[in-house]
Amino acid sequence: MGFYSKNTVTLTRKTVDDIHKKGGTVLGTSRGGHDTIKIVDSIQDRGINMVFIIGGDGTQKGAAAIYQEVKRRGYKCVVCGIPKTIDNDIPVIDKSFGFDSAVEEAQRAINAAHVEAESAENGIGLVKLMGRYSGFIAQYATLASRDVDLCLIPESPFYLDGHGGLLEFIEKRIKEYGHMVIVVAEGAGQDLIAQDMRSMDNKDASGNKLLLDVGLWLSQKIKEHFGKKKKTLNLKYIDPTYMIRAIPSNASDNVYCTLLAQCAVHGAMAGFTGYTVGLVNGRHAYIPFYKITECQNKVSITDRMWARLLSSTNQPSFLSKKDIEEKKEEEELQVSATSADNVNSITTRTGLGFSPILTLSLYHPTFMKPPRK
Amino acid sequence: MGFYSKNTVTLTRKTVDDIHKKGGTVLGTSRGGHDTIKIVDSIQDRGINMVFIIGGDGTQKGAAAIYQEVKRRGYKCVVCGIPKTIDNDIPVIDKSFGFDSAVEEAQRAINAAHVEAESAENGIGLVKLMGRYSGFIAQYATLASRDVDLCLIPESPFYLDGHGGLLEFIEKRIKEYGHMVIVVAEGAGQDLIAQDMRSMDNKDASGNKLLLDVGLWLSQKIKEHFGKKKKTLNLKYIDPTYMIRAIPSNASDNVYCTLLAQCAVHGAMAGFTGYTVGLVNGRHAYIPFYKITECQNKVSITDRMWARLLSSTNQPSFLSKKDIEEKKEEEELQVSATSADNVNSITTRTGLGFSPILTLSLYHPTFMKPPRK
Amino acid sequence: MGFYSKNTVTLTRKTVDDIHKKGGTVLGTSRGGHDTIKIVDSIQDRGINMVFIIGGDGTQKGAAAIYQEVKRRGYKCVVCGIPKTIDNDIPVIDKSFGFDSAVEEAQRAINAAHVEAESAENGIGLVKLMGRYSGFIAQYATLASRDVDLCLIPESPFYLDGHGGLLEFIEKRIKEYGHMVIVVAEGAGQDLIAQDMRSMDNKDASGNKLLLDVGLWLSQKIKEHFGKKKKTLNLKYIDPTYMIRAIPSNASDNVYCTLLAQCAVHGAMAGFTGYTVGLVNGRHAYIPFYKITECQNKVSITDRMWARLLSSTNQPSFLSKKDIEEKKEEEELQVSATSADNVNSITTRTGLGFSPILTLSLYHPTFMKPPRK
Amino acid sequence: MGFYSKNTVTLTRKTVDDIHKKGGTVLGTSRGGHDTIKIVDSIQDRGINMVFIIGGDGTQKGAAAIYQEVKRRGYKCVVCGIPKTIDNDIPVIDKSFGFDSAVEEAQRAINAAHVEAESAENGIGLVKLMGRYSGFIAQYATLASRDVDLCLIPESPFYLDGHGGLLEFIEKRIKEYGHMVIVVAEGAGQDLIAQDMRSMDNKDASGNKLLLDVGLWLSQKIKEHFGKKKKTLNLKYIDPTYMIRAIPSNASDNVYCTLLAQCAVHGAMAGFTGYTVGLVNGRHAYIPFYKITECQNKVSITDRMWARLLSSTNQPSFLSKKDIEEKKEEEELQVSATSADNVNSITTRTGLGFSPILTLSLYHPTFMKPPRK
Repeated sequence: MGFYSKNTVTLTRKTVDDIHKKGGTVLGTSRGGHDTIKIVDSIQDRGINMVFIIGGDGTQKGAAAIYQEVKRRGYKCVVCGIPKTIDNDIPVIDKSFGFDSAVEEAQRAINAAHVEAESAENGIGLVKLMGRYSGFIAQYATLASRDVDLCLIPESPFYLDGHGGLLEFIEKRIKEYGHMVIVVAEGAGQDLIAQDMRSMDNKDASGNKLLLDVGLWLSQKIKEHFGKKKKTLNLKYIDPTYMIRAIPSNASDNVYCTLLAQCAVHGAMAGFTGYTVGLVNGRHAYIPFYKITECQNKVSITDRMWARLLSSTNQPSFLSKKDIEEKKEEEELQVSATSADNVNSITTRTGLGFSPILTLSLYHPTFMKPPRK
Repeated sequence: MGFYSKNTVTLTRKTVDDIHKKGGTVLGTSRGGHDTIKIVDSIQDRGINMVFIIGGDGTQKGAAAIYQEVKRRGYKCVVCGIPKTIDNDIPVIDKSFGFDSAVEEAQRAINAAHVEAESAENGIGLVKLMGRYSGFIAQYATLASRDVDLCLIPESPFYLDGHGGLLEFIEKRIKEYGHMVIVVAEGAGQDLIAQDMRSMDNKDASGNKLLLDVGLWLSQKIKEHFGKKKKTLNLKYIDPTYMIRAIPSNASDNVYCTLLAQCAVHGAMAGFTGYTVGLVNGRHAYIPFYKITECQNKVSITDRMWARLLSSTNQPSFLSKKDIEEKKEEEELQVSATSADNVNSITTRTGLGFSPILTLSLYHPTFMKPPRK
Repeated sequence: MGFYSKNTVTLTRKTVDDIHKKGGTVLGTSRGGHDTIKIVDSIQDRGINMVFIIGGDGTQKGAAAIYQEVKRRGYKCVVCGIPKTIDNDIPVIDKSFGFDSAVEEAQRAINAAHVEAESAENGIGLVKLMGRYSGFIAQYATLASRDVDLCLIPESPFYLDGHGGLLEFIEKRIKEYGHMVIVVAEGAGQDLIAQDMRSMDNKDASGNKLLLDVGLWLSQKIKEHFGKKKKTLNLKYIDPTYMIRAIPSNASDNVYCTLLAQCAVHGAMAGFTGYTVGLVNGRHAYIPFYKITECQNKVSITDRMWARLLSSTNQPSFLSKKDIEEKKEEEELQVSATSADNVNSITTRTGLGFSPILTLSLYHPTFMKPPRK
Repeated sequence: MGFYSKNTVTLTRKTVDDIHKKGGTVLGTSRGGHDTIKIVDSIQDRGINMVFIIGGDGTQKGAAAIYQEVKRRGYKCVVCGIPKTIDNDIPVIDKSFGFDSAVEEAQRAINAAHVEAESAENGIGLVKLMGRYSGFIAQYATLASRDVDLCLIPESPFYLDGHGGLLEFIEKRIKEYGHMVIVVAEGAGQDLIAQDMRSMDNKDASGNKLLLDVGLWLSQKIKEHFGKKKKTLNLKYIDPTYMIRAIPSNASDNVYCTLLAQCAVHGAMAGFTGYTVGLVNGRHAYIPFYKITECQNKVSITDRMWARLLSSTNQPSFLSKKDIEEKKEEEELQVSATSADNVNSITTRTGLGFSPILTLSLYHPTFMKPPRK
């Protein structure tokens, strides 16, 4: 995070004039931990009284920690989160900024996979899409494309071998149609990969580490399976990750971004703090950090949207009836804690009058302190 | 409508396999009136028991008339509407199928206008976008682009000459920035054009008729104004209408289309009739025709979204305070009759248990007759 | 031209870093005459010793005039032309910078026309493309698309009415296929339009002036024709001019641009002046201005490329045998004066040793004076 | 090859109507050897008298073998090659069909690499492009993009470690600019990879085999280098291979394709056989197979085009002066055997009158037998 860096950049109307037409970030990005104490020190030292923190699930958690620390110190500073992640893994809100653009651009990769698969004998086009913990991009890209025969996401477990397994299904589909398209979220099948890694000879780590990529790993498993059966296979693996990440946002995300920006600033100006902005059931809402950080947004594999996907790809669920029951219970628990419906009910419960400027807010969390008199 | 035609086409999985990747329609399209009696005769003669009617505001009204006639005859046939129009002029629902794609593609034209305007001395890029009665495409395309200096829509009246008028604003903006981009919805300023036509010598209709196009008309007005003032002007007029209409739908619309299709069929299978499907506050709903047809969806120029546009373009509203008050009252009347909130309250009022397959429906209108036993 | 302006811009590596990714021009553009004397005064006053002039047919003529004036004064300054015009109307060279990009982008408009035409009963998609005097964009865009039924260019005369006329052909094609796509270069049919204008009541110029646009004019003629015959017609007119002009150059043009830039500078550094750079038969050449300015590049309607177009669209030539013979003679005369073959022979004739740095040059015009010692 | 298959497909105007708008192949594709005898048997059995064979360097060699066998048997059948390969590795001709489209689409990947590199601290965007033996795609994509800092191709050897080595250069460029973009052709550095493989423990082939991919291998080498020096590195590897292969051809390739098709058929109709069609110095030519098959088209790293690349990327050549001298001699030998100039001289030598239909042909090889009387 740039909180520690000395050389801050002043953003003027002119410096940001064209940035929405480019991909990437003018602010710079990095991974890795952050030191909340040092960040708040830096905020305090500079006398900053409004902080807007842009990012996904992890960033929102970081923002929440910063908010707590700011509050603990009694320092007057708004801390506001902006939900930006192509993974769409932030709960409560309808969607995060960037998700739509990612799904759109993913079509290009799926189209290529389809073309490659159709052009070769027993052709398989395998596309890996982003989503370490949530399969939303894979799910929506599959629904939008309608060329996909199989979609694998972290939320839906599967097994490779034996009756009802993944490899059997692939073999069958290839036999029937002559070709197929597979979309796999990067976080799918991680348990199976971990198993495989443990059983491997660990002498030569450098090559094997590559197999932690589910796309490369799955490609190899499919090739081995067809190899054993002495069947022709033309598998083409496409990893469009960085090509998707790097595109400029599409029109729908641009409009959403404008809304988020205006809501964020209006909220801060009206004296709120400790919140993330976002659409909830199509309405702009201010959501306290704790609602956002207590869980992660995940594809519900027992709801109608995933059912639509299964009916569109005509793929098996790879789940036993018992699995589904269990999954349902698990998800219901989660939903009762975090869903948008719950948000509504909270709103009704708190039911406080909205500030006139902010009639859009569903929340007026009484625990938020106006930062400035 | 193809209802009269003898040669019907059977759509198989194979014939529709690729159609979502192409623009246009495989069904064919036409304008003009329809004869409800003849259509229902045709439905009855062929023994059709489910009719799905795809189209915009006008088409939904036609579907409602067909539904009434079918009901009057006591004929057992589902009549269901699918909201497809880039104009987004269907009320109650969040958006119609096609709207997102149109806004996306409109960016290309606005970008071109921006490039042309910037490259020339006193350059104006003028883009006409679709929207005869509703300015949604112009509004959202403007918000998404952020390069637009002025957006004109049918819902927001304006005047050309004199203090506070359009031409004065254009002159001022050009003086300040050296160039500008104008987006005009095709239905904007129709009252002014009508006035102009009346005052013209009607001898030579063929040329003048072209001026009914608001883009050509406005271009001429601006040119005349700068001509009178002997100021340089480089105006480039872009009409991307057919290039926008002809594109294939984008990923977001593809997903929406899948939902609409499944909801429409599920509704029919569950015994509903006389409804349009659509998203209402992010939830799939069945909406009785009469709620859809009693008014048209229009941009509310007193709400927050239009305010966002004004703040983004920094254009004047061209309205007096009194105008705004009147507009507000007018719109509030409309809203109380048609808004999504109202839909919710109706739902609550009827409050009937949903069929288990159809938990997504907000409506279970008791007046709908299940068509088949 | 910016030659008169006081406020010159220094282009650094940084200021031009990204400009090849945007359309338009950072230099600014304008139309209209120029005063050679004043331009050369300005060059001399500033002590400029190398001038690179970027533009099309007209600009090259201007560059030639500047070169003559510079030479007349005995002032030491290189004058070099860079052939940049989407119209491809500069003779001798294989193609001008921008042409490829324009043909590529024109596909989008033709595709839209095709989609619109196919979707409607008796649908005609009419696309106007750039080319006031040369039909190259229309010709190549038609060849690339393969969806076009009729391509009209300035070089190929046609007539509207009667047997063998344009309207008869359109009627016939519509009857046969149900729809058609027409591509018309902006300079086509200017003689017919001029005739029409003369016969019109000139009272109301503003509307009629619009009919000078061949696309609007032709649309109206076709509509009138089908109106008289009481036949359904759905004509959609697309004018993508500014949307094509505004795109960034494609990869092939980017590579070409690099070559042109390097050749231009190498030529100047080696002491040449009074030349335009360009590819001739795939080889980089230095061409004296007088070869470039003595005529304009035009589509030869008697050569193989146009024959390929006719066979691809299956359109009549609208020419009598006598017309063709005459055209051939006319074109041959032109060719003998200007063709690339001729360039080669000149090269052989002058046959001077090339400077070692410049082995690519086909010319070493002895009349060019090295500007600096 | 489909020569053995029983189920041939008849291509009608209708079945091929839209195929130029899709990527991939409707004919199907496969790799691997072919049995010339069996193929010619199949041709003879079916009584085929014209065979058009579409493909790259390898396919042209296959076509030549088929031609020889057909000739040996005295069977009357035209064998004609169509040069289609994105790699551009066919000699004599100006370019092969598909090359332009590939270079165009590669821009998208390079742009993404640039965005990713710029957005992170010490960011490297690494793009692998097609080209097992020839680096043309990498070279032209680099020239077109102008965002590339280093381009590696099979024709230009390099070394990793030590002074003047690749890793030193990368480290230096990163230090200077903060980020860099690397383009590597798939065939670059194969000797270094082979060395590495030999030195590796061969026990665990499955993972290591992945390192035969130059992109993955180079990524690892760079990561190791920065790891050893304990420097931050954000390397993003992009392999757009299948996304490039799968796109439909661009406008310029579409026009070229039309020319190739017409030339191929005209040649066959005029009685030629044993030839490949193509552009030579901008002119359509018939080239005997033996000229095409005796060598492969390669990037000349001693000519002006590669020099332009070096000046554009500002990368070192990684070659000693002696290397360059040797390379030059080697290339000159090759050129004297295969260049287009040589083609011209052959034409002049044979100098036979062209058939009137075929004035475009540079060749009328006397050894070709007209297949049908």
